Amino acid sequence: MANRLSDEEMTTVVAELTGWKLEGKFIVKKYRFREFLKGVAFVNEIAELSEEKNHHPFIAIDYKLVTLRLTSWNAGGLTDLDVALAKNYDVIYEKM
Amino acid sequence: MANRLSDEEMTTVVAELTGWKLEGKFIVKKYRFREFLKGVAFVNEIAELSEEKNHHPFIAIDYKLVTLRLTSWNAGGLTDLDVALAKNYDVIYEKM
Repeated sequence: MANRLSDEEMTTVVAELTGWKLEGKFIVKKYRFREFLKGVAFVNEIAELSEEKNHHPFIAIDYKLVTLRLTSWNAGGLTDLDVALAKNYDVIYEKM
Repeated sequence: MANRLSDEEMTTVVAELTGWKLEGKFIVKKYRFREFLKGVAFVNEIAELSEEKNHHPFIAIDYKLVTLRLTSWNAGGLTDLDVALAKNYDVIYEKM
C-alpha cells in the first residue's frame, strides 16, 4: 500500500501535473471531446487501465465533457499511484 | 421538440417509474453492479442509445455504482422522451 502524500507534497505534485486540480483528498481533471462517443471511448480505456491497476477513479460523462476524480481510499488521500495514473490518463487522452 | 411535463405530470410519471427520483428538473437513478466492468458495459449500451436518440443523460461511474440523470434542456425540464428513455435504461439493466 502506497503512503499518503503530505499536504506539501500534494501541492508540489499537482503544480507539476497538467490541468489537474486539488479538491480536498482528490485530484480532478476535465477532458473535452469533439464528440460524445469519443469521450465514451476514452472512458473505456480509463476503465480498462483502472481494472488492471485495481484503482478506480470517479468518472463523470456530461455529454462531451469527461471528469476524472482520483484518490486512494485505503491511504486516506493522494498517493504516488494517483499521480502516476493521472499522467497515464493524460497520455491516453493525447493519443485520442 | 417534446413539451415539458407539468409539475403534476412529473410527480405522476416518477411514481410510475421504478427507482427513479425527481431532483429539480432531472430524474435520477442509481444502478448497482457486481463488477466495475459490468457497469462500464452498461454505460456503453446507454451511450449508444443516447447517440441514436440524440438525447444524452449525465452519467457517473463511481466504482460499481452507475448514476444516470435525465432532463430535456431544450424543453427546460422533463418530457415524454426522458420518461421513455428511463424505461429503456431499466430494460437494458435488466438484461445484463
